Amino acid sequence: MVIDCRRTFWIFTLAGSLLMMPAAAAQNKPRARGLGVPFDGTPGDLNAITDVKGIEVGHVTLISGDGKLEVGKGPVRTGVTAILPRGKTSADPVFAGWFSLNGNGEMTGTTWIEESGFLEGPVLITNTHSVGTVRDATIAWLLKRKLMHQAFALPVVAETWDGYLNDSNGFHVKEKHALEALEGAKGGTVAEGNVGGGTGMTCFEFKGGIGTASRKLTKEQGGYTVGVLVQANFGVRHQLRIAGVPVGEEIQEGTFRPKEAGSIIVVVATDAPLLPHQLKRLARRVSLGLGRVGSVAGNGSGDIFVAFSTANAGAATKDGKNAQLTMLSNEKITPLFDATVQATEESIVNALVAAETMTGRDGHKVLALPHDRLREVLKKYNRLAEKK
Amino acid sequence: MVIDCRRTFWIFTLAGSLLMMPAAAAQNKPRARGLGVPFDGTPGDLNAITDVKGIEVGHVTLISGDGKLEVGKGPVRTGVTAILPRGKTSADPVFAGWFSLNGNGEMTGTTWIEESGFLEGPVLITNTHSVGTVRDATIAWLLKRKLMHQAFALPVVAETWDGYLNDSNGFHVKEKHALEALEGAKGGTVAEGNVGGGTGMTCFEFKGGIGTASRKLTKEQGGYTVGVLVQANFGVRHQLRIAGVPVGEEIQEGTFRPKEAGSIIVVVATDAPLLPHQLKRLARRVSLGLGRVGSVAGNGSGDIFVAFSTANAGAATKDGKNAQLTMLSNEKITPLFDATVQATEESIVNALVAAETMTGRDGHKVLALPHDRLREVLKKYNRLAEKK
Amino acid sequence: MVIDCRRTFWIFTLAGSLLMMPAAAAQNKPRARGLGVPFDGTPGDLNAITDVKGIEVGHVTLISGDGKLEVGKGPVRTGVTAILPRGKTSADPVFAGWFSLNGNGEMTGTTWIEESGFLEGPVLITNTHSVGTVRDATIAWLLKRKLMHQAFALPVVAETWDGYLNDSNGFHVKEKHALEALEGAKGGTVAEGNVGGGTGMTCFEFKGGIGTASRKLTKEQGGYTVGVLVQANFGVRHQLRIAGVPVGEEIQEGTFRPKEAGSIIVVVATDAPLLPHQLKRLARRVSLGLGRVGSVAGNGSGDIFVAFSTANAGAATKDGKNAQLTMLSNEKITPLFDATVQATEESIVNALVAAETMTGRDGHKVLALPHDRLREVLKKYNRLAEKK
Amino acid sequence: MVIDCRRTFWIFTLAGSLLMMPAAAAQNKPRARGLGVPFDGTPGDLNAITDVKGIEVGHVTLISGDGKLEVGKGPVRTGVTAILPRGKTSADPVFAGWFSLNGNGEMTGTTWIEESGFLEGPVLITNTHSVGTVRDATIAWLLKRKLMHQAFALPVVAETWDGYLNDSNGFHVKEKHALEALEGAKGGTVAEGNVGGGTGMTCFEFKGGIGTASRKLTKEQGGYTVGVLVQANFGVRHQLRIAGVPVGEEIQEGTFRPKEAGSIIVVVATDAPLLPHQLKRLARRVSLGLGRVGSVAGNGSGDIFVAFSTANAGAATKDGKNAQLTMLSNEKITPLFDATVQATEESIVNALVAAETMTGRDGHKVLALPHDRLREVLKKYNRLAEKK
Repeated sequence: MVIDCRRTFWIFTLAGSLLMMPAAAAQNKPRARGLGVPFDGTPGDLNAITDVKGIEVGHVTLISGDGKLEVGKGPVRTGVTAILPRGKTSADPVFAGWFSLNGNGEMTGTTWIEESGFLEGPVLITNTHSVGTVRDATIAWLLKRKLMHQAFALPVVAETWDGYLNDSNGFHVKEKHALEALEGAKGGTVAEGNVGGGTGMTCFEFKGGIGTASRKLTKEQGGYTVGVLVQANFGVRHQLRIAGVPVGEEIQEGTFRPKEAGSIIVVVATDAPLLPHQLKRLARRVSLGLGRVGSVAGNGSGDIFVAFSTANAGAATKDGKNAQLTMLSNEKITPLFDATVQATEESIVNALVAAETMTGRDGHKVLALPHDRLREVLKKYNRLAEKK
Repeated sequence: MVIDCRRTFWIFTLAGSLLMMPAAAAQNKPRARGLGVPFDGTPGDLNAITDVKGIEVGHVTLISGDGKLEVGKGPVRTGVTAILPRGKTSADPVFAGWFSLNGNGEMTGTTWIEESGFLEGPVLITNTHSVGTVRDATIAWLLKRKLMHQAFALPVVAETWDGYLNDSNGFHVKEKHALEALEGAKGGTVAEGNVGGGTGMTCFEFKGGIGTASRKLTKEQGGYTVGVLVQANFGVRHQLRIAGVPVGEEIQEGTFRPKEAGSIIVVVATDAPLLPHQLKRLARRVSLGLGRVGSVAGNGSGDIFVAFSTANAGAATKDGKNAQLTMLSNEKITPLFDATVQATEESIVNALVAAETMTGRDGHKVLALPHDRLREVLKKYNRLAEKK
Repeated sequence: MVIDCRRTFWIFTLAGSLLMMPAAAAQNKPRARGLGVPFDGTPGDLNAITDVKGIEVGHVTLISGDGKLEVGKGPVRTGVTAILPRGKTSADPVFAGWFSLNGNGEMTGTTWIEESGFLEGPVLITNTHSVGTVRDATIAWLLKRKLMHQAFALPVVAETWDGYLNDSNGFHVKEKHALEALEGAKGGTVAEGNVGGGTGMTCFEFKGGIGTASRKLTKEQGGYTVGVLVQANFGVRHQLRIAGVPVGEEIQEGTFRPKEAGSIIVVVATDAPLLPHQLKRLARRVSLGLGRVGSVAGNGSGDIFVAFSTANAGAATKDGKNAQLTMLSNEKITPLFDATVQATEESIVNALVAAETMTGRDGHKVLALPHDRLREVLKKYNRLAEKK
Repeated sequence: MVIDCRRTFWIFTLAGSLLMMPAAAAQNKPRARGLGVPFDGTPGDLNAITDVKGIEVGHVTLISGDGKLEVGKGPVRTGVTAILPRGKTSADPVFAGWFSLNGNGEMTGTTWIEESGFLEGPVLITNTHSVGTVRDATIAWLLKRKLMHQAFALPVVAETWDGYLNDSNGFHVKEKHALEALEGAKGGTVAEGNVGGGTGMTCFEFKGGIGTASRKLTKEQGGYTVGVLVQANFGVRHQLRIAGVPVGEEIQEGTFRPKEAGSIIVVVATDAPLLPHQLKRLARRVSLGLGRVGSVAGNGSGDIFVAFSTANAGAATKDGKNAQLTMLSNEKITPLFDATVQATEESIVNALVAAETMTGRDGHKVLALPHDRLREVLKKYNRLAEKK
């Protein structure tokens, strides 16, 4: 099913007076490995961040208006994505770490992650100019849900810039949208492409947005799962490599950027019992996944990554008692690095595969990565896998 | 709406019936060295961050309501402070660096400072739960004033928590307040104490808030100025040292905290031609000033510091041209470290001296540091200087 | 000529005519609180880093020659100090973190501490130009003792510069000296002042060197111990504050530095169950202790700090198994910050009190802090405590 | 006995049965692009770090003994590589920055690079257990050459571990070898493969070692050059991707590692006028080049990178005067990121292509990447370029 974004609007809400797309339909869309893109490693059941038990993801997608940009009116191509490490009812922090490959972007709350080792609440992703609204809305939500870990909250909200398609100076994301993304979060399949915070994003001059993937380690490796979710909004065309193949050089249609720009936010989740300093190591590996798809993390990029572990529940004792923890041996951590690199690479390609052509402000049109052409190019370079 | 600042008032209200206190009156309030507190080094003319040419500071102070806390209604004891490195009309970024001594707090925009070396716009300080509103409001202001350096903005907004006096979960700071703080910014004397972002803050269990000081280097040292502005909201009483004297052990009245809590935001400005990595060095020295007044930067503290230089105007060329810069030799930087440590120490004491007793939510009353008692204690320890 | 501190003497000579002092006598030397310097907090039994159970300290002190500097011949005023977190027979790493307040110095091995969270072996401190020799010697010692945790070792060796008194370009520290410092390490009383790596150091233009102190938390706080050992070699006279008193301004005799120079290495040890990211927090608090004694961490300073915890033995499992750990709640960490700040301050003053006047190369003579004058100044400022 | 690589041969043995290879022959060895490996971007004349004007590189290669390991006797397969930013006669520091992707390794001197923004001297690379010897030897060399910038030196010495082939616990690198590497440094062609610090290294379970490459920006981009030199010692076979092609999966002969291990040191040089914080950005991009060849930066890796700029000569004024600098606009920096990523990728492949099969201790034999097989695999995936 395809939404013609140029007309009217396409908004997904819980409350409902809008157009809703059946999840089943969404799930019929092919994903990257379904098209025959070869990847290393073994994904989890959903090949999504939600393969890490307990994680919930919610999207609010705002699409309305057409034509010439009128600041404050539209067109609107934006949204909010919320990732809840322990779902909507737990106030239990998770161990976390973060890394900035190129900091032309914002991720609030990182100073406290770095200091405390904990992520105390959800991670939200939106457009650059809505970070503040979403941040304070998250506090309101934590208060309402009674999920504050301290007397105050320092929410983690990140962004990429959707101003090529969206009226990004119009501040269209409101408090209610953040609340809806949070309340609408759920486990299971995660919508990809033009949804949530990824709605108006572009990637290697194709339409980008939200992508996700996961890896499941072998029993010998501990059986842990690593899940990744990206909001992909970076790259110029010629850089794009998929499965090592120079796809960007082969498919030149529809380029529009005179120079490198854009950003990527990456959320890495695992159930492996990693301490904060180990999670920073995971966050740093995201760079290697970006390297595989051809990124150079240009000056304009906000390439900021956060990693958390759902293990060690209760580590942030509230009564001041010592916590009893499990820590993965550093000697066993390399497979988690593998998993992070692989799932990052696949998440980005999944975002590209899922996103659909969109026309936004001032008639700016960004093409979807054409699936057939992708398969042709992979075949040319002898890298087309069997469809799965 | 009621303000009992006990003696005087300089108040802004939501409803608009402003009471303004003449600046002259404000200036009659003694400052720390006026009371005979001895400090090292030579201050600038105003002994304020505005001694660094071009810097403007604006405060919006919100005080209303009384009695029992009703979330969303009040009492309100909060505000916004804006520091503009090059005033209200320049879009020219300044070189900057930052440091977190203890990161239980928020300063947005630091990731881009770290990456680019630039602070692209003002620094704002408010309460913890209003950072988002103030951040997005700053973007709106930059857009309106046409001061955006990139196609998007990543404003620097910091906070400390005023929930002991203020209805901090009531989100009383609105976009307009941030805009007013920005538009109201000016050079010259800087109001201290219960103003702006510092309105509801406490420090060593005395009333805290905004404080400022400066140091002027000798001609041989380059003649540069270092200015500091703090939003002081940290410390338990017994820790307080003023001019090395154990004031906190001597004055025990009015303590209310069972354990260390609170935060401090520090802004360091200079006209010395420092590069970004040198400004990080300045930011790191703030810790030494905090050490002098007795801080241990407890777990609950958001002790986050940013330093910038107004020298090297035009360094952020917009046309991609190489910039021609001046860099202070590292061999000459130590006097700037001295100045930063000294001005940090004095700014904190100035905040304590300027702040007035305040009663906030639920009848919480925080006493001002009693000037006469301070002088007695200094005298007891043979550290009372001549009044200046 | 090398002195083995394990045995009975402690030797200082200008011209080769050795003066031997029985260890017992050495222990009769007063320490700072014995002179009536008031400090906050409660020390452990020894008021030394060795109050943390299991820690061993060894010094090798090299003093020989007199008169004019002949590079490679002397005079020699240098040495090596070794701190062994778990003594000489354990290969079990300890959790660790580090911080550089001003990085004009060297501490090898920090990159692996930062990455792994572990300190795998001892910490050694020597003069700037002997770090390499001591580093490789430490590997040899680990090999001989079969204490390697990995197939290779990345030892932690730090330094300060003793070139004002010592022939520091003469490379007088040899492999054997490092081995002796390691082998000679023991628990119990720690020699202070002109010993080990601190032999030729100066501090606030007085003779400096090694100092140590500790703090014991109350049972309610967990009963943990924090121990600190410093190699103090920093500061210009006028900056010196002891117990908040401007001692440096009062005692002006014997100054020799035209400008700020020098460094301090600080080792913080605790038995509290802190994770690596929490130990970084401890390391960062050292700055606050330095602030109390008047440091501004000048450009020439190598102010580098490492903190480790002897708790969680076995955390670095060698078989790749998950480790079971205990973590102190962040909510209980502030007393450990207090302890770190206090013990840092006292260690530095202990170094000053213990060090004795020394004449080194080219007749450079550095005076000991005169104990009687110190007491007079403390009395003048009403800060002289009862002798303990 | 040491062989001067500039002249005729490149093998050194203690025991004497030398294999000599004419330098000319060495230069006839194909490099990666000569074999038809396609790379992005345009290299400089030499496709080496020495394309950045003024840079000199020296290698000392130690190869002797055979058969069973006898610690201290051999077999020896190690060496030292020296990179001199401004040659052997200049004491003028260069701006620099560094980054650790995975810190299971050592690079001394980084704390001062981070603090001061300068690299004050050469960069040396050797084996893990010889870092100390090489470090102090570098000080001796700086003293002898009168190249000390401060009264003391904090040399930058890095390492990877060659213990699979070399008697790495035998400490075979002596002071004289470091001095020879420094004195032997020169511009022009840089020997690659089994030379200098790279002598005993392995990479993706092929023989590894030293590799280099460069990129020349277009005139419009500023015409700057970026040169990279790597000591490559990382990776397990199946990870290896060359030009995006899964070479490691295709060539399975001669694998020997049960799990990921090893390290890579990368030196990035440029003549673009970058400030220290901009050079850190370059250093961070090395990760993306590593991502392209398949690295996951496993737990055992010491992946540490340093970047410096030869522009802005005289920036480290010795008289304390302000320096006049040129800074590249951040808006123009992305092509330098491209260049860094590309040259890192190519340097690693160059190391693999240049290195020759080596048998070391205990008969451990590591195969060279077979050139013909590489070409076959590239051809299979339609990625074989014309030979150049």
